[in-house]
Amino acid sequence: MTKLQLDSYLQIAQEAVTAAGKVVRPYFRQASLHADIKSDESPVTQADREAEQTIRSILQKETPEFGIIGEEYGVNRTDSKFQWVIDPIDGTRAFITGRPLFGILISLLYEGKPVLGIIDQPITNERWIGVQGQSSQFISQLGGEIGTRSCSELRFAEASCTAPEILESASTTNWKQVYNKVKRVSWGGDCYAYGLLALGQIDLIIECGNKIWDWAALVPIIEGAGGCITDWQGNALNLHSKETVLALGDPRLKQQVVDLLNNC
Amino acid sequence: MTKLQLDSYLQIAQEAVTAAGKVVRPYFRQASLHADIKSDESPVTQADREAEQTIRSILQKETPEFGIIGEEYGVNRTDSKFQWVIDPIDGTRAFITGRPLFGILISLLYEGKPVLGIIDQPITNERWIGVQGQSSQFISQLGGEIGTRSCSELRFAEASCTAPEILESASTTNWKQVYNKVKRVSWGGDCYAYGLLALGQIDLIIECGNKIWDWAALVPIIEGAGGCITDWQGNALNLHSKETVLALGDPRLKQQVVDLLNNC
Repeated sequence: MTKLQLDSYLQIAQEAVTAAGKVVRPYFRQASLHADIKSDESPVTQADREAEQTIRSILQKETPEFGIIGEEYGVNRTDSKFQWVIDPIDGTRAFITGRPLFGILISLLYEGKPVLGIIDQPITNERWIGVQGQSSQFISQLGGEIGTRSCSELRFAEASCTAPEILESASTTNWKQVYNKVKRVSWGGDCYAYGLLALGQIDLIIECGNKIWDWAALVPIIEGAGGCITDWQGNALNLHSKETVLALGDPRLKQQVVDLLNNC
Repeated sequence: MTKLQLDSYLQIAQEAVTAAGKVVRPYFRQASLHADIKSDESPVTQADREAEQTIRSILQKETPEFGIIGEEYGVNRTDSKFQWVIDPIDGTRAFITGRPLFGILISLLYEGKPVLGIIDQPITNERWIGVQGQSSQFISQLGGEIGTRSCSELRFAEASCTAPEILESASTTNWKQVYNKVKRVSWGGDCYAYGLLALGQIDLIIECGNKIWDWAALVPIIEGAGGCITDWQGNALNLHSKETVLALGDPRLKQQVVDLLNNC
């Protein structure tokens, strides 16, 4: 895969995410918006469904030979080396409560590894772009610059998590040992919080229950901003990961946090 | 107090909040922003301090005979029937982690009762305005309209709270009885979540530890949007309240929630 190819895939992904933003925007804060509850008890709306259909139709037209994994409409073609991964609205709870901190996520896997990722916030018009081997980009009128923050000790770390229920559902309570040592914890944010980590605003995020569509786009963005993102064992995330995610702005903290999470 | 007087006080408050927004905006997501920890362990930044000074100087110039209660610089003049109440940045944790969901709050008390309130979000350029006896206003390019939502049963209610630590610090765990009965709970938001309740996006917020500068501006906004806001006993909030807040989009839920909170 050449840089030229990657650039052209990024262009396709950007076209798809822009089109999905146009679909989602009119539903935001509308009284008529109704959320159904899926089998995993997470909410889904017409906006999620239409946005994923819009993205899939653009990706299928432009790269018919690639596979697609989407949160709402499942898997197409597993035999390709390239797989698009879509979360049409990451943070549906934020979306249905009118918080402009959800995101549209698109990633491209090559042989199972994310080589590009986009987080798009269509209400504030902010976009994070990550491409393997390149510095990440951030496009926003609200302020902030790409680049994680130096933070060599846990006691200085600004930690974040989307919701306490996420951590309470974990198979271990070792995350408490980490959160008890940090400077502060703030709540809410979904993919947007990982974007803020890539801007050096947050130092540490520990979550679990994350499916591939929740984390794939984050990997190139965070790595291309100087941070690291792994599972709770410190291993690279992959299709067979156990749905745990640890993101750090300063990779020097990784071993200490992994030790705490695994009670070493 | 005539409507004409109230309109002129609102104009002064808007001028002050606009000026404070100009002070806060350049600090947002800046790497150099440093947070100090106050005696109550909450963070404060140079932006909080400068914004409050800016607001105080405008209010003192325009209404020198009025009292002022501010989060960062305390109380001036307690002998006036009119008291301005200022929170220069409500949601400093959101502010220092780059989330555009904090707010600048200004309220005016007349004989201890909030008669006007403003929530201003200077990054997304959104503003909620409430004036006693009038319909509230919402100014935003992001979507949404003033008006709380009908929600006659707790099992349909979208609940919210800024952080679990807030509720865990309460003197009772009865809030769990409420949150166990609602449809969903989402986290984060500070004053912005109360603004979303006034837009019919959220139905219920239970918090505690709220000082007068945290809640005064919310009262006229929520009441002027069709909702109600009281303490956990269902009484109007006042200077001597026990720092508990219950906000409901649909006042029909009030008695049921108050009963659960008080274990009746």
